[in-house]
Amino acid sequence: VRAEILAVGSELLVPGREETNATEITARLRQIGIDVGARVTVADDRDLLESAFRTALSRADLVISTGGLGPTEDDLTREAAAAALGRPLGRDVSIVEALRARFARFGRTMAAVNEKQADVIEGGTVLPNLRGTAPGQRVRVEGPPPRTLVLLPGPPHEMLPMLEAQVIPALAGREGAAVLRTRILRIAAMGESDVEQVAAPVYTRTANPRTTILGGAGLTELHLTAEGATGEEAEALVEALAAALRAVLPHRIFSEDGRSLNEVVAALFIQRGVTLATAESCTGGMLAADLTAVPGASGFLREGHVTYSNPSKVRLLGVDPALLERVGAVSEEVALAMATGARRGAGSDIGVGITGIAGPDGGTPEKPVGLVFIALQGAVGDRVRRCHFPGDRPRIRRQAVQAALEMLRRGLLELPAL
Amino acid sequence: VRAEILAVGSELLVPGREETNATEITARLRQIGIDVGARVTVADDRDLLESAFRTALSRADLVISTGGLGPTEDDLTREAAAAALGRPLGRDVSIVEALRARFARFGRTMAAVNEKQADVIEGGTVLPNLRGTAPGQRVRVEGPPPRTLVLLPGPPHEMLPMLEAQVIPALAGREGAAVLRTRILRIAAMGESDVEQVAAPVYTRTANPRTTILGGAGLTELHLTAEGATGEEAEALVEALAAALRAVLPHRIFSEDGRSLNEVVAALFIQRGVTLATAESCTGGMLAADLTAVPGASGFLREGHVTYSNPSKVRLLGVDPALLERVGAVSEEVALAMATGARRGAGSDIGVGITGIAGPDGGTPEKPVGLVFIALQGAVGDRVRRCHFPGDRPRIRRQAVQAALEMLRRGLLELPAL
Repeated sequence: VRAEILAVGSELLVPGREETNATEITARLRQIGIDVGARVTVADDRDLLESAFRTALSRADLVISTGGLGPTEDDLTREAAAAALGRPLGRDVSIVEALRARFARFGRTMAAVNEKQADVIEGGTVLPNLRGTAPGQRVRVEGPPPRTLVLLPGPPHEMLPMLEAQVIPALAGREGAAVLRTRILRIAAMGESDVEQVAAPVYTRTANPRTTILGGAGLTELHLTAEGATGEEAEALVEALAAALRAVLPHRIFSEDGRSLNEVVAALFIQRGVTLATAESCTGGMLAADLTAVPGASGFLREGHVTYSNPSKVRLLGVDPALLERVGAVSEEVALAMATGARRGAGSDIGVGITGIAGPDGGTPEKPVGLVFIALQGAVGDRVRRCHFPGDRPRIRRQAVQAALEMLRRGLLELPAL
Repeated sequence: VRAEILAVGSELLVPGREETNATEITARLRQIGIDVGARVTVADDRDLLESAFRTALSRADLVISTGGLGPTEDDLTREAAAAALGRPLGRDVSIVEALRARFARFGRTMAAVNEKQADVIEGGTVLPNLRGTAPGQRVRVEGPPPRTLVLLPGPPHEMLPMLEAQVIPALAGREGAAVLRTRILRIAAMGESDVEQVAAPVYTRTANPRTTILGGAGLTELHLTAEGATGEEAEALVEALAAALRAVLPHRIFSEDGRSLNEVVAALFIQRGVTLATAESCTGGMLAADLTAVPGASGFLREGHVTYSNPSKVRLLGVDPALLERVGAVSEEVALAMATGARRGAGSDIGVGITGIAGPDGGTPEKPVGLVFIALQGAVGDRVRRCHFPGDRPRIRRQAVQAALEMLRRGLLELPAL
């Protein structure tokens, strides 16, 4: 079953407004194994709406709309959906009576415009609204292929209970309903196309699980989604593919459980029982900020230095001024001297040093913007990496932090656990 | 002109993922008077995508897609758009060469899969990508009615500059467009409801400009949007309301031109010709990272310390161990001693110290989670603020950084400019 969701309302297209209904419905449907192929936000315009319903019904088995069921002129969902199906609307007298009674309960007389909320698409089932005036509707369209159209109200406090009580149970009970299981494999400091070149031959062998690849600054994700008759079956399919991907990306996948790289590295520091001191130039404290974002970072992070200037590299980290003079602040040697100075000063097991050119200015032909040296020193041995990152200042800084975290992770993995 | 936006990518339909590109494009188009009729998020599925392009082209004059232009198998936007238009794709040799050169610049060999990024729809214009590999495309479709199709890449840092430089100017030149002008007033370290209480009586007096209030951690924004026959008229309406809001929020609005708080504070440091040293405990380097995110931060930031532990507060900042013993690390006195130590050590004009309890653990009845002391010392006098922030660890840390930046801003404003 493939679903499409239509969120109806011009107000949803105004900047600053967030559309939450479609997102909620997507999440809920996935839990019962129904995939959403498209999500459409559409203005209160009769022709646009009819076109949106027509398109959705042509490519999805299940179409759910939210909004546009109220009494005002802008509420056009019923008319548009009926037109898209080529069916007439009929006024349901019992709904008119129920609406009138509801108004009376609140001591008010019902304005005539409200009656259109009682219009039901021919062959449709009414979904009572326990929290508001506009009822929902469910229409089964005979095939081929058979499809289901569900119209839900827009206000979340009316829509969600109706979805939960009157829509989900009917869908979940369908025969042969599949169950989905997903997993996200995360890889740091390796480009999206490099990951794909290695991983695609593995994951394209199978259509179930499906795999999507996603790249960010210093982070690539593989999203696996498997379908099964049971949760166990779907989980086994996900695990089999994950195992095959682990084999072609040895030591590269740092997380399969949603943890981010800083969390994984912080946990390794605690497990290995080693301590850290940082010395950052171009990343200006981002690495320390990332590590201290994890609760319990005080257990391993002794101290951090932001040494943007040469004098502070000399005074705080003991970097030799002659070395700075000879090779420049952005160099393998200075990165290592920074790591060494940070480690010695703090008396920690490991020191990390980062120095580079984040731009936009300061680049030269020999040392272009994006050139970054990262050094580890101490319990994991001396390691220096020369990186040349693409992108603008924030991307270069983010990639440098990710690369430093990945170096720490690989180094820590080689140490024995406590 | 009516526009439709297609956001392409299965990952955008995964719960928890937010789609921001279509929202950004909607906002930008409104500023030049173009209304978005529908916004579609669609999975990486060849048939769905083609259907989405076909539908959009049947009901909108301007169709803009984002995503699906990369090198991987999932990137199907070019093929789907070409099929929807009934036009072939041709490989542009000059783009292939440019891609190869880009890879070479970063010392890498281009994998063959990347070549498909050079496929251009017949009759299409290439939109160079200055921040990434995949170029965009613009295709004019002869009428009736005439339409424009624009394909943009998915990563926001690639998409937004392309939109701004290569798409908006061409669209804004059309005649007869109603003109919108917007302005965002930013206020730091003052809660959304506090801002609203003061500002709402002013901005609700008028329907044009419309005003939306938006709250984040340590940041509240007022979004003003005015409509006018001309840009001048709309601008005058925005300015009149902004002036009225400035009057009820004296010294509180730190930005009306899109600049963030760290940019404003960095610019003030440069203008005032004073230097800074930081000492951070609970924010763990975030303040330094925020300030060094601004190019040219080396002009004022002498050095930064992350002193998570008491020994490092003593050794690096010269905080008196007896003081730590007597009042505890999270105290007004220690915040001031940290600021003083950072300033003295670096020989800077101002020192800032932050100490607090970010949680989730470590709180006591006297010193609960969220308690943070922020101190300034030096050229702006001695100032200490005691804050008690709500929220979880990331929100508490973010609010602490915002409050420190706001204290620096207010202090710097009182110093004479160079």
